[in-house]
Amino acid sequence: MSSDRLFYLPLGGAGEIGMNAYVYGYGPEDQERLIVVDLGVSFPDMDSSPGVDLILPDIAWLEDRKDRIDGVFITHAHEDHIGAVALTYDRLGAPIYARPFTANIARRKMDEHGHPEDAINVVASWPDQIEAGPFSVGFVPISHSIPESAGLVIDTPAGRLVHSGDFKLDPTPIVGEPFDADVWGQIAKSGVKALVCDSTNVFSPNAGRSEVELGPNIAELFREASGMVVATTFASNVARLKTLAEAGTAAGRSICLLGRAMRRMIEAAVEEGVLKDFPSTVSPEDAKHIPRENLLLLATGSQGERRAASAQLANGKYMGIELTDGDMFLFSSKTIPGNEKSVIRIINQLSEKGVDVVDDSSGLYHVSGHANRPDLQRFHEVIDPQVIVPMHGEHRHLRAHTKLVEEGGRTGVLAVNGMMIDLTGNAPRVSGYVETGRTYLDGSVQIGALDGVVRNRIRMALNGHVMVTAILDEEDEPLGEPWCELSGLPETGRSNAALVEVLEEDLSQFLGRADAKTMRNDDAIEEALRRIVRKTSQDEIGKKPEVTVVISRLS
Amino acid sequence: MSSDRLFYLPLGGAGEIGMNAYVYGYGPEDQERLIVVDLGVSFPDMDSSPGVDLILPDIAWLEDRKDRIDGVFITHAHEDHIGAVALTYDRLGAPIYARPFTANIARRKMDEHGHPEDAINVVASWPDQIEAGPFSVGFVPISHSIPESAGLVIDTPAGRLVHSGDFKLDPTPIVGEPFDADVWGQIAKSGVKALVCDSTNVFSPNAGRSEVELGPNIAELFREASGMVVATTFASNVARLKTLAEAGTAAGRSICLLGRAMRRMIEAAVEEGVLKDFPSTVSPEDAKHIPRENLLLLATGSQGERRAASAQLANGKYMGIELTDGDMFLFSSKTIPGNEKSVIRIINQLSEKGVDVVDDSSGLYHVSGHANRPDLQRFHEVIDPQVIVPMHGEHRHLRAHTKLVEEGGRTGVLAVNGMMIDLTGNAPRVSGYVETGRTYLDGSVQIGALDGVVRNRIRMALNGHVMVTAILDEEDEPLGEPWCELSGLPETGRSNAALVEVLEEDLSQFLGRADAKTMRNDDAIEEALRRIVRKTSQDEIGKKPEVTVVISRLS
Repeated sequence: MSSDRLFYLPLGGAGEIGMNAYVYGYGPEDQERLIVVDLGVSFPDMDSSPGVDLILPDIAWLEDRKDRIDGVFITHAHEDHIGAVALTYDRLGAPIYARPFTANIARRKMDEHGHPEDAINVVASWPDQIEAGPFSVGFVPISHSIPESAGLVIDTPAGRLVHSGDFKLDPTPIVGEPFDADVWGQIAKSGVKALVCDSTNVFSPNAGRSEVELGPNIAELFREASGMVVATTFASNVARLKTLAEAGTAAGRSICLLGRAMRRMIEAAVEEGVLKDFPSTVSPEDAKHIPRENLLLLATGSQGERRAASAQLANGKYMGIELTDGDMFLFSSKTIPGNEKSVIRIINQLSEKGVDVVDDSSGLYHVSGHANRPDLQRFHEVIDPQVIVPMHGEHRHLRAHTKLVEEGGRTGVLAVNGMMIDLTGNAPRVSGYVETGRTYLDGSVQIGALDGVVRNRIRMALNGHVMVTAILDEEDEPLGEPWCELSGLPETGRSNAALVEVLEEDLSQFLGRADAKTMRNDDAIEEALRRIVRKTSQDEIGKKPEVTVVISRLS
Repeated sequence: MSSDRLFYLPLGGAGEIGMNAYVYGYGPEDQERLIVVDLGVSFPDMDSSPGVDLILPDIAWLEDRKDRIDGVFITHAHEDHIGAVALTYDRLGAPIYARPFTANIARRKMDEHGHPEDAINVVASWPDQIEAGPFSVGFVPISHSIPESAGLVIDTPAGRLVHSGDFKLDPTPIVGEPFDADVWGQIAKSGVKALVCDSTNVFSPNAGRSEVELGPNIAELFREASGMVVATTFASNVARLKTLAEAGTAAGRSICLLGRAMRRMIEAAVEEGVLKDFPSTVSPEDAKHIPRENLLLLATGSQGERRAASAQLANGKYMGIELTDGDMFLFSSKTIPGNEKSVIRIINQLSEKGVDVVDDSSGLYHVSGHANRPDLQRFHEVIDPQVIVPMHGEHRHLRAHTKLVEEGGRTGVLAVNGMMIDLTGNAPRVSGYVETGRTYLDGSVQIGALDGVVRNRIRMALNGHVMVTAILDEEDEPLGEPWCELSGLPETGRSNAALVEVLEEDLSQFLGRADAKTMRNDDAIEEALRRIVRKTSQDEIGKKPEVTVVISRLS
C-alpha cells in the first residue's frame, strides 16, 4: 500500500472559468483508479472560435484510461459543470452520479443524444456516500445560484478531500439549502488533506450578500413600474426566478415565462420538488390580452444571446409581444466578461423603443452565486485543510487565490489544467504534466481546437477567399482562361476595373508564358497562381486573400 | 433672409461612441452652406466587421454637396474625431482647421496618404474666430484627455451655437488648458441658441476627478515596486504619460517608451510646445542594460490590442525586454466595452509570468476624460442655452442625457445619426432624415458596410466554405468527377468517411442521372449541386456550409 498515491488533475476549469473537469486518482502509479468531478462546456466566440457550437475539455487522457474510471460526479447543473456529460458519454461510459435536480437536467441531455437515461444515478446527500473504487464520495448541500448544488467530500485511503464545487456562504438562499457551517465543521473535524476550492470571486473584496436581500428591492421596483415589466436572469437561477415572480405577483402582475431554457428549468425544479409555491403563470398567447401594467415577463438571454427571448424582444417582437415607450426592462444579472457588446446592443435597442433599462450597477437587483474574498477566507478556516488548491478560475484568479491562501498561513498550490498534483505525502508536489486542450463541438462533429479547421475559418473571415479554376488539356496547355470566384472581397480596387478581371488577366498571362516543365507540375502551377492572386490583390485592394486553386487536367 | 435656416445634422457619433461627424448648415433650404465638425473613425471587431481596418461614417450626403462645404473643424486629435480626415480628403476637399497639436497629428495623417499637408490650417484659440461662409467658428480650450482639446463657438446669423467637443471640468489637467468657467460664462452671456453636448459619461453619477489627483497615488505605487514596472495608457493621454514618467523618475527609474504611437504623440506634443519638462527617456536597447528595479516602461496597448507593446510584453518579449516574477504592470486606463476579453487575456498572460497587475478598479490610477453626470449639469448651467442636443453617445447615452436635460427644466433634443434638426426658430424640430451608415476601410479600399462583402466573410467563418468544380464536355456530359475543396470544415463526419469523398460521390451521382435539360442549364446545375452539398454536409457534420460552384464547359 505504501506505493499507492493520491493525485488531483484538472483537465478543464483551472485556467478558465468554464468547461470544468477535474480528475482524482488513487492507487499504484499509472494504475490509479480514477473519478471525474464535473464535465462542463464553455461557449465559443467569434474572435477565437467562429461557427463552433460548444467547447469541451479534451478528454483524450481520460478516454485512454476509461477502464480505470469508477464514476463521474456532477456537483450542479450549470452548463460549465454538466454540459459535456452527454457529449462525452460515448467515449467514457462511466456511471454518472448527481443529486435529483442535477440528475433531472442530466437525463434530459442524455435523452437528447440518444444515450440511456439510467446511466445517471440519483444520489442522496451527505452523510450518504457513494463507493467508487477506493473513493467514497458524499454530496454536501452548499448554497450557489442553482438548486441542489453540492460540495463533495471525497474520502480516500490517503485521507479526506473536500471539493468545494461552486459555492457562496448564503444562509438564506430562497431555493435550495443554506450554507451550513456546522455540517462543514463536522466534516472537517477528522482532518482534511486538501481543499480544492472555487476561485471565481477572489477579486470581490466585500463579503457576499444573500439572495434574500433582493426581494424587497425588486418588489419596490416592480410596484413603481407603470408599463409592462420584463426581467431577465440566468434560466437556472430558480431562486431568482421565484423572487422575481413573487415580486410581480405582489405588484398585481401576471407572470409569463419566455424562453425554452427557463420553462425547462422551472419544470425540472418543480418535478424534483425543489421549487414550491412558484406563482402560476400565463402563456405568451394569453399574455397578449392582459393590460401591460399587469404583466411581468421573465425572459431568457441575460447575456445578450442573439436568439434568446430578451434579444428578440429588444429587436422587435417575441411571440407577438412588443415592448414600447414606458415599459421597463430589468437585468437581474451580471454581464459576463466578453458579453458586454451583446448586452449593450440590447440596451440600445430597448432605448430606441423608449424602454427604461435597469441593470445591476446599483447592487439592488443582483447578487453573485460565488464566495467573495472574505467568504473564501472563512471557508478556508471552516475546512482548515493541510493544503488548498484553487480551481474554477482563470490564471489570474488561481494566482490571487493562492496568494490569499498563503496570506492566511496555509499551503496553496497553483495548479493549472494538465498539472498532476501528488497529494499523498505531507507536501503536495507536481508529479507530472498531462496534455490538455479544447475540443470543439462543431455542428454534430467534435474536432480538436488545434486541428486547423477553425483557423481556416478565421483566415477566410479576415482575408476573404479566392477560388481559382484552371483546366489544362492533354498537352498541358490551358484550355480557355483561368476562372476566379471571390468571396468576402471588394469588387473593385485601385485600377477601377473589376478585381476578378484583373486577377484572371494576370493568371492568364502567367499560364500563357509558363514553361513546359512548370505546366506539367500541378504543385508548381498552384503555388504560382496562389502567389499571383495574393500579389495582385495586395496591389489592387491592399489585402492578401486566402486562395484555393483547382487544376483540372483532361487526360 | 427670413427663409434661411440653421440646422444640425449628425452623420456619425450620435448612436455610437466613435466615428464622430457632425454637420451644421445655414442658408436657404437645400442651398445651405455647410461646415463639418470632426471626421473620426471607429474600430472594427470580429463579430461584426472581420478583416476590416477602420470604420468611418458614410459621407455620401456630404460628398454630393461638397461645393457647399466651407470648412472642416477638428476639435481634438483622438482617432474618433480626426481619424477619417485623410481618408475622406479626396472626396470632400474642404479646408481643415485645427489647433496646433491637433493640426500636427492631422498633417502626419495627410502625409501618410499623400495628401497636401497645407490643407490643414492651424488656428489660434478663442477669442479668434475663423470665417467660414455664414459661420464664424472659435476654438475654446477645454479640458479632456489629450492636449489642446477645444469646444467650438459657432456663430451664425440665426444665433450662437456651442459644440462642446469631448470635455471634462478639470481645473488642473497637468497638460493642456484647465476648464475655465469664466470664459465659457462670457461666451454664454450674449445667449446661446443650442448646446450640442458630449454624453459619454452620463451614467457616471459622481463628479469627475482631476488628472492632478493621480500623481501622488502613482508615485507611491512606483516607489513601493521592487521589480520592473510597466504602465500602459492611451498613447494620446500626454498628461498621463507625464504623470507616469515623473512618478517613475521620482522613484529612481529610467523611462523607456514602447510603441510607435506613444513616441509619435510625445514627439508631436513636444514639437508644438504643449509638453514641457518631460523626463528624458532611454531607448529599448539601453533599457536592457538597466537593472529592472530602476526601469519604468510606458507601453502602448491599454485596450489589449494584439500587436501593441503591452500584448507583446505579456505574450513573450518586446524589443528584447522580458517581464518576470516580481515585476508590476499598471493599467492606468479604463477598458472600453468590447475590449474586456483582450485585456483579460493580457492579464492572465502576465499572471503566468508572475507579474503583479494593478488596474483602475481602485480608482487611484485612472480618471476619465469626460464630464460625469453632475459635471454635465454644471456645464448646462454655465452655457444656459435655449436647447441642448446630446451627442457623442450610443442611443442609451443620448436618451439618458436628454432626460437629464429635461429634468433640469431645459429643452432636450434626442437626435440620432441622419436626423436633421432645424434650429432656426424658437422650438427645434426634426426637418428631415438623411441616409447614413458606415463605410469600411478594408485594406486600401473603402466599401459600404451593407455591400455584402463582410457579410460573406462572416458566413464563411460561421459555416465554412465548399468549392465545387465540374467540367462538362461538348455534349453536356460530365468530364470526370466533380471536384470539392473544403475550407474551414471538419474532415470526417457521421459516416466516418472523408467528407470530401462523400460529397463528391453524391455530386457525381447527381450529374450522372440529371436529365439533358438540366445539364444544358448552368444555373440549374449550380443550384442543384449547392443544395446537395448543403444537405449532405448537414447529414454528415451537422452544418450547412457556404458553397461556390464553378461549371466549366468545353465548347
